[in-house]
Amino acid sequence: MINFTPGPSQLYFTVEPHVRQAFREGVPSVSHRSKEFEAISKSTTEGLRELLGISKDFHIFFVGSATEVWERAIQNLVHERSLHFVNGAFSKRFHEIATQLGKTAAKVEAPLGQVFESNYKVDSTFELIALTHNETSTGTMLSMDFINQFRKQFPDSLIVVDAVSSLPYPQFDFSKIDSIFFSVQKGFGLPAGLGVWIVNDRCIAKAESLLSKGISIGTYHNLPTLLSNAKKNQTPETPNVLSIYLLGKVVEDFLRRGISIIRKETEYKAAIFYQAIHSHTLAQPFVKDPKSRSQTVLVAETGAHTELIKKELESRGLYPGDGYGDQKKTQLRFANFPTHSKETFERLVDLLEKVN
Amino acid sequence: MINFTPGPSQLYFTVEPHVRQAFREGVPSVSHRSKEFEAISKSTTEGLRELLGISKDFHIFFVGSATEVWERAIQNLVHERSLHFVNGAFSKRFHEIATQLGKTAAKVEAPLGQVFESNYKVDSTFELIALTHNETSTGTMLSMDFINQFRKQFPDSLIVVDAVSSLPYPQFDFSKIDSIFFSVQKGFGLPAGLGVWIVNDRCIAKAESLLSKGISIGTYHNLPTLLSNAKKNQTPETPNVLSIYLLGKVVEDFLRRGISIIRKETEYKAAIFYQAIHSHTLAQPFVKDPKSRSQTVLVAETGAHTELIKKELESRGLYPGDGYGDQKKTQLRFANFPTHSKETFERLVDLLEKVN
Repeated sequence: MINFTPGPSQLYFTVEPHVRQAFREGVPSVSHRSKEFEAISKSTTEGLRELLGISKDFHIFFVGSATEVWERAIQNLVHERSLHFVNGAFSKRFHEIATQLGKTAAKVEAPLGQVFESNYKVDSTFELIALTHNETSTGTMLSMDFINQFRKQFPDSLIVVDAVSSLPYPQFDFSKIDSIFFSVQKGFGLPAGLGVWIVNDRCIAKAESLLSKGISIGTYHNLPTLLSNAKKNQTPETPNVLSIYLLGKVVEDFLRRGISIIRKETEYKAAIFYQAIHSHTLAQPFVKDPKSRSQTVLVAETGAHTELIKKELESRGLYPGDGYGDQKKTQLRFANFPTHSKETFERLVDLLEKVN
Repeated sequence: MINFTPGPSQLYFTVEPHVRQAFREGVPSVSHRSKEFEAISKSTTEGLRELLGISKDFHIFFVGSATEVWERAIQNLVHERSLHFVNGAFSKRFHEIATQLGKTAAKVEAPLGQVFESNYKVDSTFELIALTHNETSTGTMLSMDFINQFRKQFPDSLIVVDAVSSLPYPQFDFSKIDSIFFSVQKGFGLPAGLGVWIVNDRCIAKAESLLSKGISIGTYHNLPTLLSNAKKNQTPETPNVLSIYLLGKVVEDFLRRGISIIRKETEYKAAIFYQAIHSHTLAQPFVKDPKSRSQTVLVAETGAHTELIKKELESRGLYPGDGYGDQKKTQLRFANFPTHSKETFERLVDLLEKVN
C-alpha cells in the first residue's frame, strides 16, 4: 500500500529500521542534558545544513510543530505590522495567528489555485513578510524569483517562508530570506511531533530588540532562549529526542542519495503526473498555470469522477489524499515526496491512464 | 542495565513492543484528522481518566511538553497575579515564566529539601496558585493535605499542580484542584515529546473571560481551541501521534496491573530505599522530614562519597541520576517509577548496603 496523502505522509522507507537502531542504542531515554543528546542534535543540524545549503549565519531550532512556528515567529519578530501572502488554508492560518496575537496583519490575496500577480500594491512597510512556499491545500508553489524579489523591495523586513510541504525539494537562496520552517511528517517522511525553525541573526536581533522594549516574546521558546540552548546543541525543554535522532538519520540517507538526484526525481515524477492528467478525460490539473504548480503536492480536479478514480486507485493499493476543505469531494491530492519512488509514480500514472 | 535518572526515565518495559505494533498498524503516518486518530486519542484519554480517577468536569489535552504547560497555564489563566510555592529548580522555573510573561508573580519559598510551613503569609488574592507536587530537583513531595487546603482558603483561585515527576503515583482529589499536568518521559516511562494538560471547566471559563477582555491567550494552544478540538478527539496541530498511541498502551498496561498495586509497590520501594540509607555510613536522605520525602524521586546526600557509590552501583549495571545543579557532585537521585521493579530496588538496596 502506498499513501499519497500530503501529510502526515507515507514514512520514508528507512524510518522503521532507524527506530529499531534507536532502541538498541537507548536513544528514547537519553537525557537532553547529556553528551549523547548533544551529539545527536549536532549531527542532525549539521546534516540539515549540508542537505539544504543553509548558510552559516542561520541557526536551526527544534520546536513542537510548524504550527508552533507560526505563533513563535509572530511573537518574536513582530511588534505591530506583518504582511501575509494568502492563497489557501495554510497561508490564511498564518495570517489569522498574527491577528489573534493582536498584530496589524495586512494581506495580499490570490484566488485558490493561483499565485500572486507581481503588481500587488501595499502601502506601508512591514516588520515581517510571510510567504507560504507551497500551499498544501491547493497545490500551488511560489517561484524562487517571487520569493527573492522581496529583499530588494523591503530591505528592512524579515522574510519568513513556510516550507512545510516542500522541503527538502526547494533550493532557497539564504541571502534573500530570514527564516524558513518545516515539520518532519511531510517531505522527510517521519512520524509527526517535531518542527524545525531556521532563522538568521537578523531574526535574533529583532527578538532581542522587542524584549529590550519590554514586549513579551514568550518564554522557553523565544529566540534568545532557543539560541543559547542551541549553542550547546541542547533545547530549552525536554524535546522529542527520538524524532531529532530519526530526522538526522533520514537526512543522512538523503545526503547519501544526493539532494540533486532527489530534486531531479521530484521534477520527473511531477512532470509525468501533470502530463497524464493534462490529457485526461476525467481529471485535469487544478492549478491552471504550469509555472504555479507545486512540484511536491500535486492536485487533480476530478469533479464528479473523484470517487471513481479514488476507488480504482485504492483497489490497486495507491491511496490518494482527499481534496482540502470544500474540495474534499471534487479534488484528489498526491504528495510527491522523497519517499514516493519513480516506479510508484509510473504505476500511478499507468493506472490513471487506464481510468481514462 | 537499569537507569534511575529521574527523567527522561528508563523506558517502561512494554514500550518497545508497542512501538513495533504501532508500525505494523501504520500509526506513525495516521492523519490527525482521521477516524483512526480520533480512536487513538479517545482511547488514551479514557484510559488516563480511569487510571488517575479524573472527574468528568476535567478535559485532557495533548501539548508539546510540561514546559509548554507552564507557559500556557500562565497565559490562559492569569491576567495579573499568580502565587507560586517555590522549593527547588522546577517550581522556581514556573515562577520565572509567570514573571517573563509580565505577571505579578508572588512566591512563598522553602529551603531546598523542605516543604512549606503551614503558617505562610500572603497578603492578597491570586488568580492562580502554582504548586509543584514533586520537586524533581530535590526529592520533596507536597502532602495531599497541603494541596487540598487551598480550595477553602482561596475559593476564587485556580489551583494548578505540576505533577510531572510523580504521576501516576499520586491520587489527587479533583474537587480540590483545577489543573494538573505531566510529561510522558517520567513515571509513564515513554520517549520524551508529549505533555498532558488536564483542566476543569473553571480554567476554560477563565481563559474565555480573558479572551473576551481582549487579553492575548495565545493561538493554536489556547484553552478554547484545545477544547473545541478535544471534543472531536483531535488536536489543533499535527501532534506526536505515535506518543499519544504509546501513552494509551502503557496506560492500558498500568490498568491491567492495577493502580493500587502500582501505588503500593511505589511506597514499598521508597520505604526500603530510605530505610537503607537512613542507617548508611556514607549516605543519608537529603530530605530530613520523612513526611516531606518524595515517593517517586528519592534523593541521597552522598557528599564526598558520591563518586565511590556511583561507580560501585554502575559496575553492577545500576545507573543513578546525578544530583541537580549545585548538588551534582554531592547527591544521587533515584527515580522510583512503575518501570522500576521491586526486585530492582531490592538489588539496589543490597548493593547500597555492601558499599556501607
